[in-house]
Amino acid sequence: MTVVKSPLSDSDQRVTGNALQSALVDLLDLSLVAKQAHWNLIGPRFRSVHLQLDEVVSNARAYADTVAERASALGINPDGRAATVAKTSGLPDFPSGWVRDTEVIEALVASFAAVIDRMRERVAATERPDPVTQDLFIGITAELEKEAWMFQAENAR
Amino acid sequence: MTVVKSPLSDSDQRVTGNALQSALVDLLDLSLVAKQAHWNLIGPRFRSVHLQLDEVVSNARAYADTVAERASALGINPDGRAATVAKTSGLPDFPSGWVRDTEVIEALVASFAAVIDRMRERVAATERPDPVTQDLFIGITAELEKEAWMFQAENAR
Amino acid sequence: MTVVKSPLSDSDQRVTGNALQSALVDLLDLSLVAKQAHWNLIGPRFRSVHLQLDEVVSNARAYADTVAERASALGINPDGRAATVAKTSGLPDFPSGWVRDTEVIEALVASFAAVIDRMRERVAATERPDPVTQDLFIGITAELEKEAWMFQAENAR
Amino acid sequence: MTVVKSPLSDSDQRVTGNALQSALVDLLDLSLVAKQAHWNLIGPRFRSVHLQLDEVVSNARAYADTVAERASALGINPDGRAATVAKTSGLPDFPSGWVRDTEVIEALVASFAAVIDRMRERVAATERPDPVTQDLFIGITAELEKEAWMFQAENAR
Amino acid sequence: MTVVKSPLSDSDQRVTGNALQSALVDLLDLSLVAKQAHWNLIGPRFRSVHLQLDEVVSNARAYADTVAERASALGINPDGRAATVAKTSGLPDFPSGWVRDTEVIEALVASFAAVIDRMRERVAATERPDPVTQDLFIGITAELEKEAWMFQAENAR
Amino acid sequence: MTVVKSPLSDSDQRVTGNALQSALVDLLDLSLVAKQAHWNLIGPRFRSVHLQLDEVVSNARAYADTVAERASALGINPDGRAATVAKTSGLPDFPSGWVRDTEVIEALVASFAAVIDRMRERVAATERPDPVTQDLFIGITAELEKEAWMFQAENAR
Amino acid sequence: MTVVKSPLSDSDQRVTGNALQSALVDLLDLSLVAKQAHWNLIGPRFRSVHLQLDEVVSNARAYADTVAERASALGINPDGRAATVAKTSGLPDFPSGWVRDTEVIEALVASFAAVIDRMRERVAATERPDPVTQDLFIGITAELEKEAWMFQAENAR
Amino acid sequence: MTVVKSPLSDSDQRVTGNALQSALVDLLDLSLVAKQAHWNLIGPRFRSVHLQLDEVVSNARAYADTVAERASALGINPDGRAATVAKTSGLPDFPSGWVRDTEVIEALVASFAAVIDRMRERVAATERPDPVTQDLFIGITAELEKEAWMFQAENAR
Amino acid sequence: MTVVKSPLSDSDQRVTGNALQSALVDLLDLSLVAKQAHWNLIGPRFRSVHLQLDEVVSNARAYADTVAERASALGINPDGRAATVAKTSGLPDFPSGWVRDTEVIEALVASFAAVIDRMRERVAATERPDPVTQDLFIGITAELEKEAWMFQAENAR
Amino acid sequence: MTVVKSPLSDSDQRVTGNALQSALVDLLDLSLVAKQAHWNLIGPRFRSVHLQLDEVVSNARAYADTVAERASALGINPDGRAATVAKTSGLPDFPSGWVRDTEVIEALVASFAAVIDRMRERVAATERPDPVTQDLFIGITAELEKEAWMFQAENAR
Amino acid sequence: MTVVKSPLSDSDQRVTGNALQSALVDLLDLSLVAKQAHWNLIGPRFRSVHLQLDEVVSNARAYADTVAERASALGINPDGRAATVAKTSGLPDFPSGWVRDTEVIEALVASFAAVIDRMRERVAATERPDPVTQDLFIGITAELEKEAWMFQAENAR
Amino acid sequence: MTVVKSPLSDSDQRVTGNALQSALVDLLDLSLVAKQAHWNLIGPRFRSVHLQLDEVVSNARAYADTVAERASALGINPDGRAATVAKTSGLPDFPSGWVRDTEVIEALVASFAAVIDRMRERVAATERPDPVTQDLFIGITAELEKEAWMFQAENAR
Repeated sequence: MTVVKSPLSDSDQRVTGNALQSALVDLLDLSLVAKQAHWNLIGPRFRSVHLQLDEVVSNARAYADTVAERASALGINPDGRAATVAKTSGLPDFPSGWVRDTEVIEALVASFAAVIDRMRERVAATERPDPVTQDLFIGITAELEKEAWMFQAENAR
Repeated sequence: MTVVKSPLSDSDQRVTGNALQSALVDLLDLSLVAKQAHWNLIGPRFRSVHLQLDEVVSNARAYADTVAERASALGINPDGRAATVAKTSGLPDFPSGWVRDTEVIEALVASFAAVIDRMRERVAATERPDPVTQDLFIGITAELEKEAWMFQAENAR
Repeated sequence: MTVVKSPLSDSDQRVTGNALQSALVDLLDLSLVAKQAHWNLIGPRFRSVHLQLDEVVSNARAYADTVAERASALGINPDGRAATVAKTSGLPDFPSGWVRDTEVIEALVASFAAVIDRMRERVAATERPDPVTQDLFIGITAELEKEAWMFQAENAR
Repeated sequence: MTVVKSPLSDSDQRVTGNALQSALVDLLDLSLVAKQAHWNLIGPRFRSVHLQLDEVVSNARAYADTVAERASALGINPDGRAATVAKTSGLPDFPSGWVRDTEVIEALVASFAAVIDRMRERVAATERPDPVTQDLFIGITAELEKEAWMFQAENAR
Repeated sequence: MTVVKSPLSDSDQRVTGNALQSALVDLLDLSLVAKQAHWNLIGPRFRSVHLQLDEVVSNARAYADTVAERASALGINPDGRAATVAKTSGLPDFPSGWVRDTEVIEALVASFAAVIDRMRERVAATERPDPVTQDLFIGITAELEKEAWMFQAENAR
Repeated sequence: MTVVKSPLSDSDQRVTGNALQSALVDLLDLSLVAKQAHWNLIGPRFRSVHLQLDEVVSNARAYADTVAERASALGINPDGRAATVAKTSGLPDFPSGWVRDTEVIEALVASFAAVIDRMRERVAATERPDPVTQDLFIGITAELEKEAWMFQAENAR
Repeated sequence: MTVVKSPLSDSDQRVTGNALQSALVDLLDLSLVAKQAHWNLIGPRFRSVHLQLDEVVSNARAYADTVAERASALGINPDGRAATVAKTSGLPDFPSGWVRDTEVIEALVASFAAVIDRMRERVAATERPDPVTQDLFIGITAELEKEAWMFQAENAR
Repeated sequence: MTVVKSPLSDSDQRVTGNALQSALVDLLDLSLVAKQAHWNLIGPRFRSVHLQLDEVVSNARAYADTVAERASALGINPDGRAATVAKTSGLPDFPSGWVRDTEVIEALVASFAAVIDRMRERVAATERPDPVTQDLFIGITAELEKEAWMFQAENAR
Repeated sequence: MTVVKSPLSDSDQRVTGNALQSALVDLLDLSLVAKQAHWNLIGPRFRSVHLQLDEVVSNARAYADTVAERASALGINPDGRAATVAKTSGLPDFPSGWVRDTEVIEALVASFAAVIDRMRERVAATERPDPVTQDLFIGITAELEKEAWMFQAENAR
Repeated sequence: MTVVKSPLSDSDQRVTGNALQSALVDLLDLSLVAKQAHWNLIGPRFRSVHLQLDEVVSNARAYADTVAERASALGINPDGRAATVAKTSGLPDFPSGWVRDTEVIEALVASFAAVIDRMRERVAATERPDPVTQDLFIGITAELEKEAWMFQAENAR
Repeated sequence: MTVVKSPLSDSDQRVTGNALQSALVDLLDLSLVAKQAHWNLIGPRFRSVHLQLDEVVSNARAYADTVAERASALGINPDGRAATVAKTSGLPDFPSGWVRDTEVIEALVASFAAVIDRMRERVAATERPDPVTQDLFIGITAELEKEAWMFQAENAR
Repeated sequence: MTVVKSPLSDSDQRVTGNALQSALVDLLDLSLVAKQAHWNLIGPRFRSVHLQLDEVVSNARAYADTVAERASALGINPDGRAATVAKTSGLPDFPSGWVRDTEVIEALVASFAAVIDRMRERVAATERPDPVTQDLFIGITAELEKEAWMFQAENAR
């Protein structure tokens, strides 16, 4: 069933679709991981990091929505169900139980590094097949690199 | 490591903790399922249901946060990571790909029925061990039953 | 035709439904009576009581809506039509024509007393059949008793 | 007791008073009927019509207040009590129990037709006795005819 | 110097201009008198009347502005200078020094009566020469009669 | 196909319909002309006039919407398509390319004069057939004459 | 009748009272003059000066209110009635009829100069008798001198 | 007369100018067509589509403004007059009279398809001559493709 | 003098009244202690804890007001005067002078522990005499335990 | 331990510190007394005075905060604990139990008189040692004298 | 010390870093120059240009912040200190003392021309090394060229 | 050229002008230094101090604007250009590159100390020549001393 007529050729659609689907999963997982940290965080920087993590959650959710709706607009079905996120996310695991603030920050630095790496690959991969999607990835990368800087600055010894 | 001194006895804390953890997972999964439907929905009622689903998402996220922070406040570690949600959610599966509006509404009716059933059990289970948590579950149940009514009314033939 | 599947047993649904329907009528009548007083009020305290009555109206309307939607959510049809309100309301009659501020305040004190009495009975009646509905009645009672206090304090000689 | 000195002659006041009182009753009944429909509505257009009906309620309440306060300003006592509304409203009856969206829309089309007819008579009747009141009726008629168009457009086959 | 080309004939412009100029003066004086009362008021109803008077001021200023700009739009120069207001206002005098709340209310009742009388004459006078200006006077009359009712209701013994 | 039952007789509907359709076209054209001027304006008063023109656009769009929805409410189909506007507008032509501020102001003065003239005719034409539509035209005329005054005042030498 | 017990000695109260009363009159007159200019202004800078004058009006009204309430707080009756303003204002006369923008700006420059001069005298006069009132005059002077600068800068040749 | 010094070479300015002018016309026509549909729409989905179309109008107007001001910023005169839109728009015709919701949605799907096609050509055409303008077109394309998806999803059978 | 007719029996009123009065004192003292800490805090976490304490103050004040007005609504006189607070508060003493952030956090953890303990006793004590008051205490306990968690999490070593 | 380096000499700091500390206590006590009156007030003016008292509370709290933070900024530890307020406040006692509106107003008039007297002494005492603190006291005095006027005006017989 | 791990290679980081640092300096200087003009402006267009310059300041500050935080996010230290701005800015000098509006506008036209030229070079220079930074420069260039157009249009003779 | 007529004598104007010009430079430099710290900050308190510094920037910019416009209002030309700031600022130098949070806080403590010292001298210097300017400096000093306290409290060991 063709619901949405894609403005892209089949192969361009396939490349762009893969990039969007994997970006969706990474961003949803980032939102879940940051919430997990938000709830289980302990240590002297609790309040400051608790608030900072909610901004990460809020941004990740908004970008996930934009990415998924971009997929739909290209005739590609986004898949953001829990099992899909659990199986295909590119983020490192996050521990259970209380986590100290220093460890939370290091975990977030690592998570951002992983997501940014993959996002820069998507920027490269979509340049020719769909500059509209590429522009969206560029905007997300800018925001992710800004948030990553803040956690690294906070982590600096 | 005892981070948060629970105001409850050990056994009350265990019962309440189980109820909170399973509620958290159900609510997070509800938010993911409703977003999945929001993106992959088709059919003449697209716009109306698309907007309605975002309200479900927004409520489910808010309640998940309240539930998780209640757990932390009782010295219990909430677990809202993707794998935990995928493995322990009480919601029925949601199909992949485009889904017609009639089917989306039926799926949501079924999802709400499952969550409400389990939430009413939690209301009963926590009455004695922690009336503060029970009150929180009562408030969530009221809202879920209201949303469930709307999907059922829309589904009436 | 079963439109909404009730989470309650038949007899619990009947008890809860009766409580919700009579609460709806009382609250709608309270909103109409307070508006009637708002328009026909005279006397030196005109402006202050005129404004106070509009807050009563606004609260009564909001609670009536909550109560009626709770009924629908339980598969019970709320009836808030004029004839039903006229026939089944538990409020004392309110006079026609201009009414002096002192009399308006006394009439409101009497109306609140009647509604609160019946609302406390509903709190008791729904405790077992549906704690979710009971919680809603508890919240409304708290607000009504607060408003009743203010009119009594203003009435004190 | 003459509380408010009317700027109109006795006969002009009588004509204008009758028009205002009957308009008040129609508008209050419209607000109650639309709320009744808002709560008992079923069918595929549930959400859209549910929201639309709340706008009808909100407008009808605001206009009823304006009309009643206009009566008071002319030294005429408005009567908006439930029994008066039940006895003297010009609206057709609205059924009890669940009502399908198609029937709700037809009922609203009929209700608006009745109210508009009577409102246009009031516009004619008050032109000479009180152009200030007429202007108020003209504004209400414009809004009612706009809402009536929307239900008719939705009802078109 | 013809700055603004009037859409009215010379005689219509003259009639309309006189009505607008006298309305402007009455409304500016009403704003000054109500402020005077706002500052010099004493008595048990101080706070309530103090706030009510500021609403009178705010409405009178807004209407004065509308009236003056309507004059300019018709090529007529509005004159709202202090000496013009002092010499040509239709309002009764307001006493100096502290004024009791009962007297303030009576003074306002009298002021509104005077302004409304003259405003109703302007409604009649402009009906044929300029229905656009008439409509503006009708709107102002409705508001003034509403405020006048409130002071009379507060004044009722 | 009778979609909307008109509250007017056939001949009254025809007269009112013609007035509404021509008003719609004039107002849409005014919004397009004012935007054209907004973009192509040059000269020392650039910023001030640039902002003033956007208020003209915003008002013209809002009135066009009101007029078109009034037509629909009377069972008359409004036509606001580009070709209809181009063919039937009552506004003078506006030049292409950069236009100096002095010329823009003169062009707007001329445009407003044309629209106001025709709007006053519509006020007269609809008085008997539909006072509700007339009242709407009166309100629009008041606003147009106010804006016209401001451009004339700015144009005064 | 002593209504308000002054915190000042009789002679300090007299000096402060005189300063407050004359400031009140100047500020009320400034608000009336600036409105007069706002309505009768013509010339190429119409829109910019029209808006600027409304800020003058709004500030002057706010300061007049502060000054009058300060008088009341000291047990002194402020007098802001039209005749008092007309007779005792320290502002130069403002012409009737249309006034060109250049002349309006010059008139405002002169008005501000007069008010500022007198306000600086009040700052000096109240320093010892009541530093609280003096502080209020200092704040008003700062604002008036800022507005005066803007008109002078606009007037610079 | 060179008013604005273009940062582009003559040939780059010509290519970019053509793309901007044709985009402006398409977007203005889209706004007029969507308003026409907004007013003449009938059928069961009336309210939902009526609201959706106003969002299309609002976006199209905002993008048209951005495009036209970008042209001016490059020293190119945008032309958005009615006749130019009527003659050079790339959109398919829209029928007169009442239009059923299903047909409106199909018409919008077709209109978006036409505009998107041409917009993607403009993205390609401006890449080299002016990446700043291209970026603007990329952003507009993303939004148009999102809106087009929604109408296609609603249209899916 | 019976001002407010209590809906409770005498003994239920006494029990509920004692619970409300002691809750009022604890909450007022909490607001004063948190402000004291807010002002005298020092150490590296100054800004973060300074802000957090103001949220404690703001919540404690709001809850104190709710508790006191609940007492009045039941015909019980709340006593929140400084001497009463000083004599009967259940909070541990707070030191004078500068206090380091680590000590402030420990003091708050201890204060919350004391208040929560006593609040849970009030929840138990009022369950039978007045479920409306109990519900209010449950809501306050939930919020206090949430705030207590945050300080404990921040305190975790 | 010198935490904050004072910009004042030791003796100036001592004088200023004493003034700030006693002002803090008076203002905190004023906020507690006004709340006590807000809750225990009875009589016909209940609603008006109830609202007025909450404004007193809100202002007193804001000023107390400003005063305490000014002390900290000068290296002086503010002490706002309950016992300190109870022991060192300059306000007259406020009775327990219900208090009639007339008595509440008299009590507030007396409280303001006491606070204002002491505040004017602080204005004098800090003029030389710290004009920055003096300016703060001047601003508070202006506001207190304004509120005191309103209660006196309401109290006038 | 490596604080932030750059996602770029060393040479790409160097090129991008140089572009960001010089952009930062230009934008900070633009904000200082526009403020200088905002304060020292004279002439008939004072008010309009005064307001326009504050929008330039506000945009320049926001872009400078974005540019500097982008540098930090790439591991490059931005330098926005006064001496650095004074020494390395690419803007022409701005005169001291009063400056006439015509000269201010010319100076701004020249400043924008200089900044835009350099910004377009940065767009070209960063295309390959970092498309994320390039996209940021493209957005800034669009805004600067829009502001530059407005000053040129105002400057047109 | 005399643009603005100063209300001060020549020598008073000179003293006041020097104080305003040096204050302007200090405040602009403070805003640049705080932004520099905002961007280059590292260490565990990153997020908290990053936000705190933006409040410093925002206050410093607002005060600089007030000071500069005060100069203009007195006929004195403020000079806030980069070179002037670089050459005449009274602030200590701020290092380049990453700066640890502890060092940033110490640097800010030192910067505030320097600015406050000079601001207190300006308060003394302007007391006689211009109390209006002095009052402005007093207000700025209060705010600077409050911010300085916070950094010192955060710095306390």
